[in-house]
Amino acid sequence: MYATMIWSGNDLAILDQTLLPKQVKYLTCDNYHQVKDAIKTLQVRGAPAIGAAAAFAMVLGAKEISKKNDFINELKIIRDDLISARPTAVNLAWAAHKLYNIALCSDDVTVDIIIQRMEDAAIRIQTEDVKINKKMGEYGTEVVPQNAVVITHCNAGALATCGWGTALGVIRSAYAQKKIKMVYADETRPLLQGSRLTAYELHKDGIPVRVITDGMAAWTIKEQGINFAITGADRIALNGDSANKIGTYGLALICKAHNVPFYIAAPVSTFDFTAPSGKDIPVELRNQEEVLSFNGVKVAPEGVGAFNPAFDVTPAELISGIITEYGVLRPPYTQSIALLRKKVAETK
Amino acid sequence: MYATMIWSGNDLAILDQTLLPKQVKYLTCDNYHQVKDAIKTLQVRGAPAIGAAAAFAMVLGAKEISKKNDFINELKIIRDDLISARPTAVNLAWAAHKLYNIALCSDDVTVDIIIQRMEDAAIRIQTEDVKINKKMGEYGTEVVPQNAVVITHCNAGALATCGWGTALGVIRSAYAQKKIKMVYADETRPLLQGSRLTAYELHKDGIPVRVITDGMAAWTIKEQGINFAITGADRIALNGDSANKIGTYGLALICKAHNVPFYIAAPVSTFDFTAPSGKDIPVELRNQEEVLSFNGVKVAPEGVGAFNPAFDVTPAELISGIITEYGVLRPPYTQSIALLRKKVAETK
Repeated sequence: MYATMIWSGNDLAILDQTLLPKQVKYLTCDNYHQVKDAIKTLQVRGAPAIGAAAAFAMVLGAKEISKKNDFINELKIIRDDLISARPTAVNLAWAAHKLYNIALCSDDVTVDIIIQRMEDAAIRIQTEDVKINKKMGEYGTEVVPQNAVVITHCNAGALATCGWGTALGVIRSAYAQKKIKMVYADETRPLLQGSRLTAYELHKDGIPVRVITDGMAAWTIKEQGINFAITGADRIALNGDSANKIGTYGLALICKAHNVPFYIAAPVSTFDFTAPSGKDIPVELRNQEEVLSFNGVKVAPEGVGAFNPAFDVTPAELISGIITEYGVLRPPYTQSIALLRKKVAETK
Repeated sequence: MYATMIWSGNDLAILDQTLLPKQVKYLTCDNYHQVKDAIKTLQVRGAPAIGAAAAFAMVLGAKEISKKNDFINELKIIRDDLISARPTAVNLAWAAHKLYNIALCSDDVTVDIIIQRMEDAAIRIQTEDVKINKKMGEYGTEVVPQNAVVITHCNAGALATCGWGTALGVIRSAYAQKKIKMVYADETRPLLQGSRLTAYELHKDGIPVRVITDGMAAWTIKEQGINFAITGADRIALNGDSANKIGTYGLALICKAHNVPFYIAAPVSTFDFTAPSGKDIPVELRNQEEVLSFNGVKVAPEGVGAFNPAFDVTPAELISGIITEYGVLRPPYTQSIALLRKKVAETK
């Protein structure tokens, strides 16, 4: 799979995912505004990937203001500007804060050294992400049944991360163990990350995949023997409520009705330890035209509006388990996430 | 709203629904093959509309073979050929059989008179359909709550019938009584009858409508206070199991999970009194490209396949009521449909 992003030391080349699968094109960003725009327009998307992109954007931003007197304050403005690009995926804020805090805690060194430390941290976020995904893959494989017929929504693959993938990482690891018979990819309207990206990734890896429209999930589960569902997440609250691409909540309800286990795969950076429940997760509303058009062609009649939430929140009670790099969390999530938080604090 | 079809006495002008809302264009069919193709390619669609189109196609077919010796046998071949165009919507077979039976029971008259009788019957099917829809609207309005925020799937409107509509007929009647606050139209992939046709019809009538993608239904129901769901149907079995456009089953499950009443509106011609349950309803599988492409433009990567069932079957237990021209049927449907069948037999 192509790298989601490549850091040269001076700029960040971002694989433009809006052009896939038709065209493989990298967008070279040499300032943080360009990265912010790429995040906003979904040229780079997927919670872990936008986390890493934001980290590099912080480095680019720091370089831009390195000569300024109030470096820290200026960096804070950049941090908050970056965070405003997309409100739901918490990895963005997580990475931006992480890089800012490095600067904040480095007041005894020169700005050049601060920037060096920030760059090291950004590179670490990127490389660690692949390791984290592989770890999730290992843990996740255990919960995948033999001869799994899997359904997934949106793209939680190598393209949504720095490589390997969260939900698709689990599928890749399970496939290597010959556990996967077929993957059904919800096309995931409005922006078709399922048919454009998930089908592309899996097909490239030789993993059997078929595309369905989002509305076909219930009938496909019933008729095609689907026995496992897995998606990524964009933000997970302390009680296990999980925000993910719009359509996930409906899929989870449909899985519940068919007794199909529904799993989420997400790294610790996707957990929002300040959000008690799903009610505390902001859901991004995007431009109506995404719904009213298809592939850039207007389909709905002129004058008609749309509702276009980019995410929904799946309540914890519909989630069979949350696969993290620390293991598989089980309900009650209030307890298992508290334990995870403790483990994370101890590891630091 | 534009007429779905116009019979001139010599040909059938069919409104090409694949071009809506961009273009209003009628396709003139002067032989039954053209009508069959129009049904197959969804230029005319919606169970009651394809029933009426099939009736006129039978008349065109009868004219084509009027000089043949074995008129009845030839007509039977045409009947079966027409029925093969689309397997799920039973109104097609219902109308084709009805017209064939008129010929079969007219062995004492000339072929010209037979054809005249068939034409009268076809025109009656068309004009009756509007009356039937208005009747359904009256009965249906009673079950619509005040300040209804409604969700519907696909298009069960004037365009799916000979005018007024089944599910949208109920919405139109309820709107006239000031009961409708907002209608959410599932766009209904793959062919977008929701955004292209339902939004178009309702907007033209000044009924407030917003488009959502099919995957948004669950979150929209939860967040936007939807309190009523209604769709049409393509075939209803004796136990109440109902086939309708793919995505309906998932929507019904999602409504159930939110305690939102889920209704079906369909005329008697949509009931299959020979099908004990949903297991006896054939589900049409259509070309994979409908899922993999849009407007002729491929979206999914080359080499990837799709699953493309055109319908799904919603089990009776998810259906709050079935609105017919004879009143609203309630569970247990085995009983209420048996009673309906008796009433229909008595009316004949």
